[in-house]
Formats: sequence, structure tokens, C-alpha cells
Amino acid sequence: MASTAALFVKIPDPFHPFSQLRKTQLNLNPTSSLLFHSRKGKTKSHRQFRISCGLIEPDGGKLAELFVTESQKNDKKKEAMSIPGIKLSRIDLEWVHVLSEGWASPLRGFMRESEFLQTLHFNCLRLEDGSVVNMSLPIVLAINDSQKLRIGESTRVALFDSDDNPVAILSNIEIYKHPKEERIARTWGTIAPGLPYVDEAITNAGNWLIGGDLEVIEPIKYNDGLDRFRLSPAELREEFTRRNADAVFAFQLRNPVHNGHALLMTDTRRRLLEKGYKNPVLLLHPLGGFTKADDVPLSWRMKQHEKVLEEGVLDPETTVISIFPSPMHYAGPTEVQWHAKARINAGADYYIVGRDPAGMGHPVEKRDLYEADHGKKVLSMAPGLERLNILPFRVAAYDKTQGKMAFFDPSRPQDFLFISGTKMRTLAKNRENPPDGFMCPGGWKVLVDYYDSLVSSWNGKVREPLPA
Amino acid sequence: MASTAALFVKIPDPFHPFSQLRKTQLNLNPTSSLLFHSRKGKTKSHRQFRISCGLIEPDGGKLAELFVTESQKNDKKKEAMSIPGIKLSRIDLEWVHVLSEGWASPLRGFMRESEFLQTLHFNCLRLEDGSVVNMSLPIVLAINDSQKLRIGESTRVALFDSDDNPVAILSNIEIYKHPKEERIARTWGTIAPGLPYVDEAITNAGNWLIGGDLEVIEPIKYNDGLDRFRLSPAELREEFTRRNADAVFAFQLRNPVHNGHALLMTDTRRRLLEKGYKNPVLLLHPLGGFTKADDVPLSWRMKQHEKVLEEGVLDPETTVISIFPSPMHYAGPTEVQWHAKARINAGADYYIVGRDPAGMGHPVEKRDLYEADHGKKVLSMAPGLERLNILPFRVAAYDKTQGKMAFFDPSRPQDFLFISGTKMRTLAKNRENPPDGFMCPGGWKVLVDYYDSLVSSWNGKVREPLPA
Repeated sequence: MASTAALFVKIPDPFHPFSQLRKTQLNLNPTSSLLFHSRKGKTKSHRQFRISCGLIEPDGGKLAELFVTESQKNDKKKEAMSIPGIKLSRIDLEWVHVLSEGWASPLRGFMRESEFLQTLHFNCLRLEDGSVVNMSLPIVLAINDSQKLRIGESTRVALFDSDDNPVAILSNIEIYKHPKEERIARTWGTIAPGLPYVDEAITNAGNWLIGGDLEVIEPIKYNDGLDRFRLSPAELREEFTRRNADAVFAFQLRNPVHNGHALLMTDTRRRLLEKGYKNPVLLLHPLGGFTKADDVPLSWRMKQHEKVLEEGVLDPETTVISIFPSPMHYAGPTEVQWHAKARINAGADYYIVGRDPAGMGHPVEKRDLYEADHGKKVLSMAPGLERLNILPFRVAAYDKTQGKMAFFDPSRPQDFLFISGTKMRTLAKNRENPPDGFMCPGGWKVLVDYYDSLVSSWNGKVREPLPA
Repeated sequence: MASTAALFVKIPDPFHPFSQLRKTQLNLNPTSSLLFHSRKGKTKSHRQFRISCGLIEPDGGKLAELFVTESQKNDKKKEAMSIPGIKLSRIDLEWVHVLSEGWASPLRGFMRESEFLQTLHFNCLRLEDGSVVNMSLPIVLAINDSQKLRIGESTRVALFDSDDNPVAILSNIEIYKHPKEERIARTWGTIAPGLPYVDEAITNAGNWLIGGDLEVIEPIKYNDGLDRFRLSPAELREEFTRRNADAVFAFQLRNPVHNGHALLMTDTRRRLLEKGYKNPVLLLHPLGGFTKADDVPLSWRMKQHEKVLEEGVLDPETTVISIFPSPMHYAGPTEVQWHAKARINAGADYYIVGRDPAGMGHPVEKRDLYEADHGKKVLSMAPGLERLNILPFRVAAYDKTQGKMAFFDPSRPQDFLFISGTKMRTLAKNRENPPDGFMCPGGWKVLVDYYDSLVSSWNGKVREPLPA
């Protein structure tokens, strides 16, 4: 067990991702409570003390887990019924989930105005000790005029899910104006109509934001068959420790995994081994919150990812697959910082960044919303992410001479075939096959089945069918 | 002379503007070249070495003055005629002025993409030593497709003024895309049509930006009778040193000075004296670059400011009046950081910030573009400005019981009259008088004369008349 092992603290130079590592031996306190909790377990035990066990420290020094203790639950539920209440949207609930488990550490609740302004203007927060943590997306809760009126002078409000179950209490609240246009402009770099998150969560949201400290009564569950994949940062850290990982490299995705991705991840592990790590572990970390309508739904993506592991394209021994509960902004260089920062909190010290991360087409103009290389550049310069090693994505394409995905060789461009996401979707929709070696057959079949089900469900008026 | 005096280095706590100061004695090197150059002198001598003499250090440790030496001038002029050239707009030239004198230190020229991206996303730049300086506005030079084509593979370009005089050489150039919409959205928090700087300098500008190191051949002069007021940061530092200033408090303005402003400035000096400073000096620092059409033009404002000093409303002994050469963005919380940062470079360690700094009405909606208190809040949290003491503006209004401008007393609101800028302009346009004690009579007369001249010049088709 990791709790009795001598582990290593890595202090890599952020400007030289593969530089020689300085290693410092750390002897763990054998009395530390570091029991491993199965990620298949239905209930999550939310412990009060966590230790970092040689993994990268969470932002702010420790994970901000915001759950009330077992003994407080009943009192908090009672209190929730006696104070002003706010009903949460699906996206609000996803943010409560994110906050509750410490993905946004050291944030302890929805942002107050000083945090909101720092996020909008500086993409980072200054802590009381003068240190800086990255924070690029506003994590805020909007309320409307009548909700504000109902809250009145109360310093606490209760948050309810769509079934009117009390989820959390927000205390020491601060209500301030919701400057929607400015929030959108500074987060996306445009206010063009048609940004998916804006349409879903901002345009019709209230004109006020309410910040405060969050006390979460019950861990957020979705009961969609995928909760077992939703490991918290603390649970991921325990899993990495159990596996004796001495490096964790995170791969954020919201699309099916093809063999080009797999090549990249496998190659990253090879390079980390070459640099002296003994057991680099991959965090394959699909985003599980809100996504736009034409993205492949989470349940189908998870099924596809499972096939990729089953068929040995990725090695299950050195891969942890888990769901990242955040909703998606499609805010490019601003959002990629959030994606990276949250993974530090989950124990990742290496982050793979691709072309145009968290990007999309401009909603009005015929071009990409962001320059393809801005995400990588902004990420590498972002304040508060100095501790994270950024691994730029190498371009993989289908090498016709080898009949498989390979790193693009600019000396023989004619040998390579680029298969875009659009192209991939079109092939799957038309039940055509991509070239052999583009994706494992089981994974491809999931995609074809998804588009098939979509056609039949359109006929049957079901919007988002689930995989069999 | 300051160069032989023993001065003090102040190390104030940025979170407690009036906290007890720790003082460290600094003995200046008597061989330092610190001759005082009259600010009335027509020629500026641009020395290679500057010392900070107890004033706050410039960002990056020393002023980045970008002038070529006297002996290089002819060669550089010749070179300028032999390499690709770019003709500068008036605003471009104002930025060359700003850069050349080190207001944007440690920036050494128009931004390359890495600086541009850090400015847009983080409002600050990280230096090679890991330290951070504030930089909230993009200082960039736009070129169009045909200019880019003409530059071709050249690594150097020459910059010319509107009379085709060579002004500067830009070397080690980098050309990158000009993402106009994103630049506007992230700088202003809106892309609504009608933002004055955007209309003037961005909308019709080229689709490329060109960054590089600036070598300025001749100091920028405007020959408008006001060049004598255009002290560089180095000259201001010398002036403060000559006056034995142990604190410098800057007041940025682009409007006429009324007695409420004067009260605030006088009161700031009183408070600084109370806190133990021996000679706090006011930098009265009107902005001299591009302003929107309905602002009072610089020449009239300077005439008005001179009256304020002549009539003893501000004490000339403890006031340095000078022109800040930057163009105005009207970008509120983003711009106020630039206004403050540039004054650090000029030696100011205290910065007075008012209600809605650098703000304006929303160009399309019927509201202010920014929340009135966001500027002050953002400024107080801005990375790279920790060394600067922020002094929030106290609200002054016309006290009817005293017949003069006084700090607003919320216990007797009925006694106070708020005279807005719009109200002031309307009174002056109609040749009416404000209440006695609102503004010194000579200063008011300048305003009335300005609006008079505007009416007569509209008749005579002259757009911007000069004061007599």
C-alpha cells in the first residue's frame, strides 16, 4: 500500500517539461488515513483529511472539499427548509458538483465579486498569502430580481435540485450585478449570438450573481449508470497513489478516442519513462458536464472509451479513466486553463494540450473562433500554472504507407491523410468505415450505433438516446 | 541638488496605503549623471543611464528609453530609407511616443504575439526572471495585407510620420494575425459599435499586427505649443528629485479641474503629511493623446489647468503639471491599470482613483459601460501593481451651506448639490455660471470661451479651435 511506501516529490522545471528531475524523498506518516476506496463503490466517503503522497499539491495547498459531515446532514437539511431557497439548473448543479469535490480549489463556493472580477480580468486569483492560483472561468450562480427580493437580508440560502431536494447551503452570501455582456466578452472574446454555454446558461439567467461559501449536504449523483466513473480529485489521488504513479499525465477530451490520440498518449508515457519516471499514469478524462448538441453524448463516449481500453489500444494497467464533471464553455484559450488547473487538483503534473483546445467554429463568421495555436500559447504563459508541465500535442495523421495513425512527417506530406472530426462524424453517420487503423473496430461500432440510434430516435422524437 | 542628498527608499505595504513606512537610507553615487534639464527646454537630452533616487523603481528595474544615440541618428535615417516602411497614424505615433520614453517599461517596442496574448488574457506580462509587471492595454501596430507583402522577409521596418519623416526602426519583427473582435471584446468587455478608440484605430486597421524592438530616431514632438509640458518619465523623476519629493501622488484626468478635484488633491497631500512624509508632490497629469470628440481638447484643458494653478486653487510649489502622451481607450477597469502602471514608471507611488475611471456611457445601451466601482476594485487587485498605493477618490459635491465644494456628508444629503460633467458642460455652453466656489473664475472662463469658440468655429467650419 502506498501509505507505507517511501515516495518521491517531483520538482520539475516548468519551462523544460522533460528536464532532469530533482527528487526529494518523502516519508509518509504511517498513521495517515489513506485507505483506498474502490472507484466502483456506489457511495463516496468524504474524509476530512487528505495527504498529497508525492503527487503535485492542489492549488492553495489542500483540496477544498465542501461536504458537511455525516452528523451535520440532518440539521443542514432542516435548515435548508427554513431559509430562502434557490432552485438549481442542470448546469448550476454541475458547478456545485465541481466545487464540492475541490476541482476549483482553493475556491470554497460560488464566486463573490472580487473573485469574479479577478477571473474576468486576470484569469487568476491572489490568495491571502500573496500567492496566485489560476482561475479562468467564472464559477457563478445567477439569480433573478424576484429571487433576490425573496432572499432579502438573509445571509444564507439553500440550493435545491430539480426534484426539490436540498443540495447545499450557501453562507455569508454576497449579491452583486451580473454584467452579462462583459462576462461573455471577456470570457469568449466575442459576444456573437450562438455560443452554446451562453445560450444555455447566461442569456436568460438572472441579472444578479450570488456568491458565498458552499456546504454540500449530499454528494451530487446523476444516477445515469456512470456515477462509478465520477471519481473526485481525492479519489483520483488515492488511485494514483495506489498505483504508485510517479507522474500523472492528463488528457482532456470530449470526443471519441481514435488511434492518433492513443498514439500520442502511448508516446507520452514512453517519453516520460525515458526521462526517468518509473510509472507514469494516464488520466483519460472525458468531460461529463454540459456539451453542445452536436457533440457525441457522454454515455456513448464512455462506451467508446471502454472499447478502446478493452481492445488494448490503451493499456488499462497504466490508464485511469474517469469523468470530469465540469460543464463545457467552448471558450478556447480561456477555458483550457480551467481544464488544466482542475487536473492539478486531481493530481496531474503533466497536461497534454492539442490544437485549438476547447475551441469551436465562430457562431456567426465562417472561421474558427480562436487561432489554433493560441490555446497552447496562453496555457504555457498562464499565471498560477507554472507548476504544471505542458505537453503540446504532436500532430498525428493517417500514414497511408504504414496503414496506421502516425506522427505527421513534414518531409513526406503526400503520405498522410488528415481525418477531421467532421469527416469522422460524416463517415460514421453514413455507416462507412474509416481507413483500417484509424480507430479500433469496437470503438468505431459504438460511433456508428450512436448515429444509427439518433436517426431512429429522431423518428421516435427521443432527443438523446442511450447506448444499449 | 538631489544628486548629492541622502534620500529615502520607501517600502510601503500595498495593502495598507497609509501604514507606517519602513525607511532605508540610500546614498547616491555622486558620480551619477543627474543634471536637471529644464522642462521648458525645446530639446530633450536622452541619457543612457538613469537612477531612481529613492523614487519608486520603474517596472522591470529601469526605464526602457528607446532612443538611438546622437551619433547613430544619421545612419539610422539612412537605413530607414533603404528598408520597407510603414506610415504611422496619429495614434500609432502617440504609441511610439509612449514606448520611446519608457511609460510602458519594460516593453521595448510594439508587442509581439506572446505579449499581446498575455495582455489580453492576464493584463500582465511575466518577465524572464519570473516577476510580473502590469500591462492591460495592447500596444500594437496594425498593418494590412499589402504592407505585409511589401515587408516580405525583411526583419526590420522603418516607421514614418505623416510628413514622411523617418521616426523609428522596428527590428526583429514578428508579424501575426490581428484578431480584432477578440482584442476588442477582451479589452472593452463589449464589441458594441461606437467605441471611440475602436472606430478610430481598430475597425479599419489592417488584419495583421507587427511587433518588434523600437529604435526611435527623434523624440516625438507635436509643435502645438504644448511640447514643453510633455515631460518624459525620466524628466519627471528628475523634477521630483529636484523638489526633494518623498512621495509622489498622481492624478490622471482628461477633464477640466473643478474645486472638488482640487479639494481631493489638497486633502491627499494633507493626509500624506500626517502620515510622516515631508514633501508629497502632486503629479497633475492630463492625458494628451487621442480623446473622443466631445471631450474638451487638450489645449483648452491645459489653459484651464494653468488658471487653476495661477489662481492658487492648487499650490504650484507642490504640483508638477505635465502631459501624459497616451491615447485614451475609454476601457474602464482595463485601462485604469495602464494609467496607474505608466505613472509608476514616472515615479509616482500613490495613485488617486475615482468613480468609473476611464469609463463612458455604453455606446448602444442606456447605461454606463462599466459598474462605477469596478475600476477601483480591479485596480486594487491587479497583478504587477502591488507596489503602488491606491487612493480611492472621496466623493466631493457642492455644499450649499458652505458655498463651496466639500466632501459629501451622508448624514445631511439635502445640503449637497452634485454637478455632473454633463451639467457642467451644459452650463458652460449656455454661458451660465455654476454656483460660486464650484470652479475658480479664470478656469470657468476658459471653458465658456471654449464652447463659444466651438459655436463660432462650427459656423466657420473649423473642427477644433485653439485657445487664444
